[in-house]
Amino acid sequence: MKRHLLSAADLSRDDALLVLDTAEELAQLTERATVKKLPTLRGRTVVNLFFEDSTRTRTSFELAAKRLSADVINFSAKGSSVSKGETLKDTALTLEAMGSDAVVIRHSWSGAPVNLARWVKGSVINAGDGTHEHPTQALLDAYTMRQRHGRVEGLRVTIVGDVLHSRVARSNVLLLSTLGADVTLVAPPTLLPVGVESWPCETSYDLDAVLPKSDVVMMLRVQRERMGAAYFPSSREYSRRYGLDVRRVTTLKDDAIVMHPGPMVRGMEIAPEVADGVRSTIQEQVANGVSVRMAVLYLLLGGAESAIGSPE
Amino acid sequence: MKRHLLSAADLSRDDALLVLDTAEELAQLTERATVKKLPTLRGRTVVNLFFEDSTRTRTSFELAAKRLSADVINFSAKGSSVSKGETLKDTALTLEAMGSDAVVIRHSWSGAPVNLARWVKGSVINAGDGTHEHPTQALLDAYTMRQRHGRVEGLRVTIVGDVLHSRVARSNVLLLSTLGADVTLVAPPTLLPVGVESWPCETSYDLDAVLPKSDVVMMLRVQRERMGAAYFPSSREYSRRYGLDVRRVTTLKDDAIVMHPGPMVRGMEIAPEVADGVRSTIQEQVANGVSVRMAVLYLLLGGAESAIGSPE
Amino acid sequence: MKRHLLSAADLSRDDALLVLDTAEELAQLTERATVKKLPTLRGRTVVNLFFEDSTRTRTSFELAAKRLSADVINFSAKGSSVSKGETLKDTALTLEAMGSDAVVIRHSWSGAPVNLARWVKGSVINAGDGTHEHPTQALLDAYTMRQRHGRVEGLRVTIVGDVLHSRVARSNVLLLSTLGADVTLVAPPTLLPVGVESWPCETSYDLDAVLPKSDVVMMLRVQRERMGAAYFPSSREYSRRYGLDVRRVTTLKDDAIVMHPGPMVRGMEIAPEVADGVRSTIQEQVANGVSVRMAVLYLLLGGAESAIGSPE
Repeated sequence: MKRHLLSAADLSRDDALLVLDTAEELAQLTERATVKKLPTLRGRTVVNLFFEDSTRTRTSFELAAKRLSADVINFSAKGSSVSKGETLKDTALTLEAMGSDAVVIRHSWSGAPVNLARWVKGSVINAGDGTHEHPTQALLDAYTMRQRHGRVEGLRVTIVGDVLHSRVARSNVLLLSTLGADVTLVAPPTLLPVGVESWPCETSYDLDAVLPKSDVVMMLRVQRERMGAAYFPSSREYSRRYGLDVRRVTTLKDDAIVMHPGPMVRGMEIAPEVADGVRSTIQEQVANGVSVRMAVLYLLLGGAESAIGSPE
Repeated sequence: MKRHLLSAADLSRDDALLVLDTAEELAQLTERATVKKLPTLRGRTVVNLFFEDSTRTRTSFELAAKRLSADVINFSAKGSSVSKGETLKDTALTLEAMGSDAVVIRHSWSGAPVNLARWVKGSVINAGDGTHEHPTQALLDAYTMRQRHGRVEGLRVTIVGDVLHSRVARSNVLLLSTLGADVTLVAPPTLLPVGVESWPCETSYDLDAVLPKSDVVMMLRVQRERMGAAYFPSSREYSRRYGLDVRRVTTLKDDAIVMHPGPMVRGMEIAPEVADGVRSTIQEQVANGVSVRMAVLYLLLGGAESAIGSPE
Repeated sequence: MKRHLLSAADLSRDDALLVLDTAEELAQLTERATVKKLPTLRGRTVVNLFFEDSTRTRTSFELAAKRLSADVINFSAKGSSVSKGETLKDTALTLEAMGSDAVVIRHSWSGAPVNLARWVKGSVINAGDGTHEHPTQALLDAYTMRQRHGRVEGLRVTIVGDVLHSRVARSNVLLLSTLGADVTLVAPPTLLPVGVESWPCETSYDLDAVLPKSDVVMMLRVQRERMGAAYFPSSREYSRRYGLDVRRVTTLKDDAIVMHPGPMVRGMEIAPEVADGVRSTIQEQVANGVSVRMAVLYLLLGGAESAIGSPE
């Protein structure tokens, strides 16, 4: 594996499977243990450098790092030198000089992680950059599919909703195609990105036609503020055409699963009964997120030098 | 003890005494030790889920958890999924899926902790909900009374001030009555809650009449923003009638103590000389708060499975 | 050494050298170690009490404390009891009652750390108070000079820029004079403090005259908001007269170094090529900051009782 995790496109099939297998091993190790903490990254420092608020993702990385015994620094951009005119590069060099071994970055600028990786010697993990990518989300989604279906290869995965603004969709398409799944994007034409024809997936405007063939249905979060704008006439109309309600779920195959990266807007893109139903993997995705992020930190920082170690 | 600590009313006399005794044991253990840290909750995760700002209470819980070697996640609602339309239930399920063993919640909604406890498998600790309850505050107050007076049973406790808006007062009345103390609430009629007649305590409007009989005087914080409103004509008038000044303190019994949950508004509900005097237990209450919260976390999370352990 | 670090003036020559030597020892110990963490302050609590935002300095102290295995509490004044009318004294006493062993304070009020030290039994470390002092910055600067030049005594140090508002300049003048360096302050007359004649240093308005004789050039950050005000006509004019550009650097001695406390405003007080050049010690200063703060925490908290200990 490379030194950084910037894009799902950087992961070869072997890389991706190594992450999933390592995550599985770590999950089993800590599950069996009395003390759910591994000494693997003791003395290492992981910095959460979040320029956009995301308590959920930040917490997931923080927990993953702490379970590997790393020290975690939460470096919020608010009230930091950034607001005093410092450049991202100087912030990065400062963090590195302080001895950070990995920087987990979330930034509204799609190029931020790639640039950061040029400047620092430590590892950079992209925790979401603009509308570009969110590779650990794609990894935890693949992990969850494999856990439920026993495989990723050959699965028919349908991703529904605001693909245009979704880094989750983009990273999933890239990773799932590497892992041999067949992805179909379903969205209104206004919410599909220009150039989607060149993505390794199908597209469709007709959710009802695609659902019966799907093994996995992944609903994307709808950002209310985009409703009523040029993108879509109203939230009610959106729900009617692209929401996953109880009726639509009845058209699914018996073993099809329903995924959502969270946070959900219940009643908008997903009905409450569906979110809480047996097909829903929403809680599993969150739990798997911690395991997958542990695996990524372990593989990037622990590398060949250190064994996973055993819990106490 | 139950799995959660939601209300002082949930604690039987035996439960409450178990918390106080455990807190005492933990305080002695860490005081004697070179390393003031117990391995008891290593690998466990405690989440501080604060929807209202309270650095003081959050810090007390954070320290308590860290002294038991737990990992602590501070999950502030600001900038979290909550602001993206996520429900409290989904936030809770997310935290649980990430592997949190206990959620310490502060919320302006009085029902939040009780509902949270329905949704999660881990322990929920109420760190203040609306005007409803703040049970660990009542426990640390009882601990402090016992430390100074040698007992809680039979003590005459006078609670003075804005009872209407005080979760501290409500939790104290419930716990102190369970422990056999006699509580009198002193407040202007506008600052007593409707239905206070059914509470297990006396009420009075006349502070000077009650003081000479009190073993404990607990002053509540006055929220300035409520002064000049319908509740009370002015802060000066409030101070004159319900403030604890130097003159009033001279009417107290020799061994009577003065308590305050903090933060104080010196010169409003309490004179600076009184706050800093020998009767004042304000600093002891803060110190005892950490011990009591350690005990609560230990009893809820460590349970029968684990001994307290010895410090290094 | 005393119990607190409030001012660079409190440090005798021996004290200062002890900090620098200890920092060097700690840096070497953790560099060689597999696990970059010392057990020295396990069970001790360090509180970062920041009334002004400074993620950079806060993070440096947080890392220093964590590398010594202390528990760290970040106590931001925002949303704390301070905003509910609590005094600094009561906040301090609360933190002490909770068992904090050291308080690292940053405050806009120049007298805050000195007063805090009167109220608490634990150690107080001044992390910047108003325009007054920032002693650990001066210590890390001296450490960096010694690392590059092999000594501090006899060095000619030129400090350039907004001396009037700079706690960094003030602490450096005091410490460097104790350590036997010759300091010259270069600034426009409007940016030199009243009474600077009594400081143990020279002053000059002419940067070009002073540069060729300097072993160390320390550029201060320019606060844009002060430009265009009474202090200086414009940022362009400031840059022209007091900025360190490529041409000026050519007039320096061969082994002269360029320092900056950060955050930099590239292109204002320092040209990007200079900031990134071989003379620049900016990254080293940041790295040394962690070592020096580890040394200060170790010497104040670990004291004679505990050896530094060895990493795992």
